[in-house]
Amino acid sequence: MKNILDRNQNKANEIRNLLILKKILMVNIISSPGAGKTTLLERTCDALGAKFRIGVIEGDITTDRDAQRLKKYNIPIVVINTEGGCHLDSNSISKVLDCFDLDNLDVLFVENVGNLICPSQFDLGETFKLAIVSTTEGDDKPGKYPMLFREAIAVLLNKIDLIPYTNFNFESFNSDLIKINSQIPLFQISCTRGDGLTDWYKWIADQIIFSQL
Amino acid sequence: MKNILDRNQNKANEIRNLLILKKILMVNIISSPGAGKTTLLERTCDALGAKFRIGVIEGDITTDRDAQRLKKYNIPIVVINTEGGCHLDSNSISKVLDCFDLDNLDVLFVENVGNLICPSQFDLGETFKLAIVSTTEGDDKPGKYPMLFREAIAVLLNKIDLIPYTNFNFESFNSDLIKINSQIPLFQISCTRGDGLTDWYKWIADQIIFSQL
Repeated sequence: MKNILDRNQNKANEIRNLLILKKILMVNIISSPGAGKTTLLERTCDALGAKFRIGVIEGDITTDRDAQRLKKYNIPIVVINTEGGCHLDSNSISKVLDCFDLDNLDVLFVENVGNLICPSQFDLGETFKLAIVSTTEGDDKPGKYPMLFREAIAVLLNKIDLIPYTNFNFESFNSDLIKINSQIPLFQISCTRGDGLTDWYKWIADQIIFSQL
Repeated sequence: MKNILDRNQNKANEIRNLLILKKILMVNIISSPGAGKTTLLERTCDALGAKFRIGVIEGDITTDRDAQRLKKYNIPIVVINTEGGCHLDSNSISKVLDCFDLDNLDVLFVENVGNLICPSQFDLGETFKLAIVSTTEGDDKPGKYPMLFREAIAVLLNKIDLIPYTNFNFESFNSDLIKINSQIPLFQISCTRGDGLTDWYKWIADQIIFSQL
């Protein structure tokens, strides 16, 4: 395991250096299955597609369904099928970077395989990891799956429109989260209804601009 | 990886033989984080605790929160903390079986770590795997994460009470599912509201009784 992680880290460092050189922000998006990664990308392409040059790497076990949902934005998208693998690694990212015109890209979103555990252990060379968790998964997720919430630079709490129909307790969720990562920015959003997304767009736009300095 | 799986399989075979000898049904419950595994166990203990001798193994990365929720049933519960590990394996199950009085047990529920991918690849010596998926994860989960739905002997579709508030399409879900596993029993349930649970209780009771023949 240590050898695997060491090899992964070396390749991740190469990727990170290349992206800094090309002034590209790379965001490694991690969540459970169905927390809303693809819907967030749809919304973000809608809102920021005219302002920034967006590319997407879709990590998917066996299909290209998420990539199909993003085709309408006419942006470069590459699918990595892990064929049963539970996370992306830096080697697979490295192999597909050539498919992008890195001189004409501002941000590269990587939608990792839907898994709250394994992806948090593998550096892809990203600028940062982003955690998405949905209210319908319950308020105990940061406490029970702390690794991702320790690694991520921001958390999106999605599906807040469904809180009235669940027993989700925000105070309990937030109390666990700040124990793990006390200063982490938290965006409370609904990707289907639109709540809270303006703050997210502003924040991610700032990150993209910061990468270009 | 092949060596790991071979060693896991050997130990799983030992466990399976022991459980057949002791006439115990062992159910390996697998789902995404927050799909409702623990709530299903609470409901099932409520409904069947007087009729059958139930034991539980709680797979949890770092906490004992799910086990705490089940303490009120006064049943034997053992927690396995995987310390970051993304699934249980047969070796960890084997080590804790001694904590149970196997001569006074009808059914052993194993709540695996919340993960739709890795747990489906590891035989724990269970009688069968049970898949839980919740409507709020979206209707595309069997298509996107086929391994579990191929391995499981039954599927529980939980949180059907939330369908009116989502874009979940049952026909699309079911069409994917039967392509992967055409004869698999499907229970449409709501663990919070109680829908569909009577059929589940009857089915699982039949499985327990069958193990005792």
